[in-house]
Amino acid sequence: MTTPTITAFERSPDGGKGLARDMRVRWALEEVGQPYEVRLVSFAAMKEAEHRARHPFGQIPTYEEADLVLFESGAIVLHIAERHDGLLPRDTNGRARAIAWMFAALNTVEPPIFERSIATILEKGEPWYEQRLRTLDKSIRTRLTDLSRRLGDAEWLDGTFSAGDLLMVTVLRRLGSSGILEEYPTLSAYVARGEARPAYKRAFADQFAVFEGSGKAQT
Amino acid sequence: MTTPTITAFERSPDGGKGLARDMRVRWALEEVGQPYEVRLVSFAAMKEAEHRARHPFGQIPTYEEADLVLFESGAIVLHIAERHDGLLPRDTNGRARAIAWMFAALNTVEPPIFERSIATILEKGEPWYEQRLRTLDKSIRTRLTDLSRRLGDAEWLDGTFSAGDLLMVTVLRRLGSSGILEEYPTLSAYVARGEARPAYKRAFADQFAVFEGSGKAQT
Repeated sequence: MTTPTITAFERSPDGGKGLARDMRVRWALEEVGQPYEVRLVSFAAMKEAEHRARHPFGQIPTYEEADLVLFESGAIVLHIAERHDGLLPRDTNGRARAIAWMFAALNTVEPPIFERSIATILEKGEPWYEQRLRTLDKSIRTRLTDLSRRLGDAEWLDGTFSAGDLLMVTVLRRLGSSGILEEYPTLSAYVARGEARPAYKRAFADQFAVFEGSGKAQT
Repeated sequence: MTTPTITAFERSPDGGKGLARDMRVRWALEEVGQPYEVRLVSFAAMKEAEHRARHPFGQIPTYEEADLVLFESGAIVLHIAERHDGLLPRDTNGRARAIAWMFAALNTVEPPIFERSIATILEKGEPWYEQRLRTLDKSIRTRLTDLSRRLGDAEWLDGTFSAGDLLMVTVLRRLGSSGILEEYPTLSAYVARGEARPAYKRAFADQFAVFEGSGKAQT
């Protein structure tokens, strides 16, 4: 198999916290033991034709493997999960349910969390900021209450650790210093279990090394 | 194969326009020629334990087939596409790229569009409404400009019609009467091509019949 190449921010705006979407792909690759190369891209280069040929929306991450070029972190994680053992159950129904959690993470839980992280940057000086934040926090809490109730005492969302948990943990981590995650001990513990996985730690260290300027990533 | 049962709104808030997420699943089932049953749920019933066992976030659609229960429209459409011909290319790379478009529709293009539809309902009276709408419209236009450029003169996003196009068309339709889609003739024509498909028309008619109160759906 060709060693895949992914793209990541040359300078991640998250200060090395592993909140950018390349973290999901790095983590998935570490879980399945697949080595990879990293091409760092600047914000300017992301919007140029060469990168847009890889990613129509001029974002990261992308994934290149021989003549396959993919974009969208969810699709890349699913591609990795389908080609290696360890991220999807082998039984057909369990596999379909794990994929449902992948979509739930990205289409149901992430949107209000992402919206909040953008609002804290772009709307901070606006007169309505406090009220807007309350509205967003309410949507987020609705999702987290439901998610927490479903998770209950289980270790992972549906049986063993899957690509659904991988995406959900990265999405919940985007709540960062908002303090909202901490209101849900069940979910805080769930995120901590994800962060404790050796593959997570390796992926985190690698993206942090880029932030620290000591990454061995190819350019 | 067991006839699957999906859930849909007993009273869709969209006035029969086919903007609710059951439309995606209906359309996918029609494309592959799979008959299905519909269980209609009220807003109150969606939040009760029986439905939450199917859908942790108390939403529609869900999909039941023998002992498999799924939620998330994207996951359901993918499940259908994997089990029948017609919604995913047969070659491995083309399949992975079609799935990338599915995630792009739901995680990159839909969030600002959905956010706008919610804002026009919930924030209409707020002092920040005009400015908020301008911000949202700007994000939407950024996405549509990129999408329109990538589509270019092609009929579909990547080769033949796929589950990626199916989801993208339903997402773009959510722009409704905003007038934004009409600024992009390439994308308007793309949506019209989707709506012209016989399977789309059958799915649309079926959801409209529910709205009109003449649906033969099971309860």
